[in-house]
Amino acid sequence: MCAGPAAELGITLSVFAEAEDASAALVVPSSPVGDHTVAEAVHAFAQHCDVVTFDHEHVPAHVLDLLVAEGVELHPRPAALRFAQDKLAMRERLTELGIPCPRWTRADDAAEVTAFGDAVGWPVVAKTPRGGYDGKGVRLAASADDLADWLERAEAEGTGLLLEERVPFVRELAVLVARSPSGQAAAWPVVETVQTDGICTEVLAPAPELDDDLAADAVHAALRLAGELDVTGVLAVEMFEVVDAGGPAFRVNELAMRPHNSGHWSMDGAVTGQFEQHLRAVLDLPLGSPRPHERWTVMANVLGGDYPDLYPTYRHVMARDPEAKVHMYGKGVRPGRKIGHVNISGDDLADLRERAAHAADYIQGVVTE
Amino acid sequence: MCAGPAAELGITLSVFAEAEDASAALVVPSSPVGDHTVAEAVHAFAQHCDVVTFDHEHVPAHVLDLLVAEGVELHPRPAALRFAQDKLAMRERLTELGIPCPRWTRADDAAEVTAFGDAVGWPVVAKTPRGGYDGKGVRLAASADDLADWLERAEAEGTGLLLEERVPFVRELAVLVARSPSGQAAAWPVVETVQTDGICTEVLAPAPELDDDLAADAVHAALRLAGELDVTGVLAVEMFEVVDAGGPAFRVNELAMRPHNSGHWSMDGAVTGQFEQHLRAVLDLPLGSPRPHERWTVMANVLGGDYPDLYPTYRHVMARDPEAKVHMYGKGVRPGRKIGHVNISGDDLADLRERAAHAADYIQGVVTE
Repeated sequence: MCAGPAAELGITLSVFAEAEDASAALVVPSSPVGDHTVAEAVHAFAQHCDVVTFDHEHVPAHVLDLLVAEGVELHPRPAALRFAQDKLAMRERLTELGIPCPRWTRADDAAEVTAFGDAVGWPVVAKTPRGGYDGKGVRLAASADDLADWLERAEAEGTGLLLEERVPFVRELAVLVARSPSGQAAAWPVVETVQTDGICTEVLAPAPELDDDLAADAVHAALRLAGELDVTGVLAVEMFEVVDAGGPAFRVNELAMRPHNSGHWSMDGAVTGQFEQHLRAVLDLPLGSPRPHERWTVMANVLGGDYPDLYPTYRHVMARDPEAKVHMYGKGVRPGRKIGHVNISGDDLADLRERAAHAADYIQGVVTE
Repeated sequence: MCAGPAAELGITLSVFAEAEDASAALVVPSSPVGDHTVAEAVHAFAQHCDVVTFDHEHVPAHVLDLLVAEGVELHPRPAALRFAQDKLAMRERLTELGIPCPRWTRADDAAEVTAFGDAVGWPVVAKTPRGGYDGKGVRLAASADDLADWLERAEAEGTGLLLEERVPFVRELAVLVARSPSGQAAAWPVVETVQTDGICTEVLAPAPELDDDLAADAVHAALRLAGELDVTGVLAVEMFEVVDAGGPAFRVNELAMRPHNSGHWSMDGAVTGQFEQHLRAVLDLPLGSPRPHERWTVMANVLGGDYPDLYPTYRHVMARDPEAKVHMYGKGVRPGRKIGHVNISGDDLADLRERAAHAADYIQGVVTE
């Protein structure tokens, strides 16, 4: 999704692709195929780049270390990326910075799980520190027994588990910001994210009826985090909205250091979309305006369903709603996999939500009329 | 500029490029190099395509004829494209359809030029029927003597010249529409185009203070033309706004059958940009909404100036105005050549015009602060 903005900006993009038929390789002329876990292969690729960035957080530390040692310009830098790769490191750092988080602990055995659950109340949320996304690597535990397998592996690997209280949240929010190596930063408005079965299915931009102070606090926290962690590129801060004694407040849930699902609305709904902004940021170009074009933009994810051929339903959606901006990723269809999204902008939020959801549901085959 | 929308729509684009370093070849993975005047070469390329379209009108008739004979799906079709390639054919057809045009004639010798000039008033506008653009192939003639060289060539080639009265216009307008093979059509709002030395330098979308009836008439004429000429893809209808006895009116100046400079504003200023719409149209996909995102969008062309390296000024413009959407085409800089454009959207038209013009002027080196 960086390909379009790169072409407009006059930036030559090169993708280190996982396979010849990878989505990105279909739209980027320079797409050598290789394994992102092999340091020498990534380094050989990186030598032809002015700047290297990532579309996921799973590049291993030994690969990043080699690139840094060889003087490759990496953004985000490994020292920042670590806080998106390792949830325990993230919790420790956020707590040091006084950013509101769910109560949490590191647990290495069943006794520690039980002590934490007894202290904050059951069930607790357990997370593997690394490798989770879209609900993977996250489990609700009613007792230590529910985590027996994870604890066994965590013990073997010496990684520990992250335990968090289950936050009684009103809704989920996300703040997307971009920051450049020279320190310029820009924030899009706070959005509401709607999750279904642990997967984000809908984003409302901006978050409707959000308390002004909470919005300002949330944006301030995200910008401060970007600065304190020295993030370069796009940073997504996922939050829970909660009600404290003092009124509406937030707890930070997760961080991502890359263009993020919660920012897809900006591709059509803002003056500068997140993929363009990420390119500007990692290249240390001046950042673009994150101002929304229209009052509301609703994003609905298209998940893989039962029909492998999405073309007929996609075509139907284009005909039914000329305002729907349908983005398909060129990925193979697997049930539950994010394979595209739909953005619709306008003045009537309820109407936009209905239409975006219908478009996404129709493409994936959930509704047929 | 189709590359971004094609990637988003999941359409695989292939470009028959004039050279390995052609702008399009830099951003489209499949870009075989060849000569668009060699029918066999174009046909070999076309065999791998579902649909073939054009980014200029200069593909020779014998090439188009071979493609049609071989069953290639061409859009626009040669029968329509002819009216964008041959200005005499265009004037004849528009006159048959009763679409308002400047008074015109075909002249093959000096006597015919003199007779026409004496009838409509001097100077007259002379055009070569084929091959003109951006002021090339257009000349203001105060007498037949001014056209001696053109008449000699026109006589040798048997092509004639198109003569038109010089229309006392208020301003220039353009209507962009898209039409699909199955007949669906959509029109963007009428825009004002500002020309400097025969080259479009600025577009205001929509045209400010445009008479409602004139706007409706202009859009109706463009949609009717698209239907009558069986245009597929984007059609740009360039017009003069004039004052008739009955009030504001228009005369059609030129036609273009492709995404057009007067529609670049739509890339950032409308729900569906012209390059996306052109792809949808030629592929017979349902058309997208042409609704503007914001009240005004101003487009300013960046012309080649004295500085071959535009990067420092481009960077300055990005920093000075985060709302400026700068599109650079990856073309070499030649004085007067269109090498990019800037779009800015918002509520204050005068402010947007100043900012867009400044950005374009700064990039090309006309202003330095």
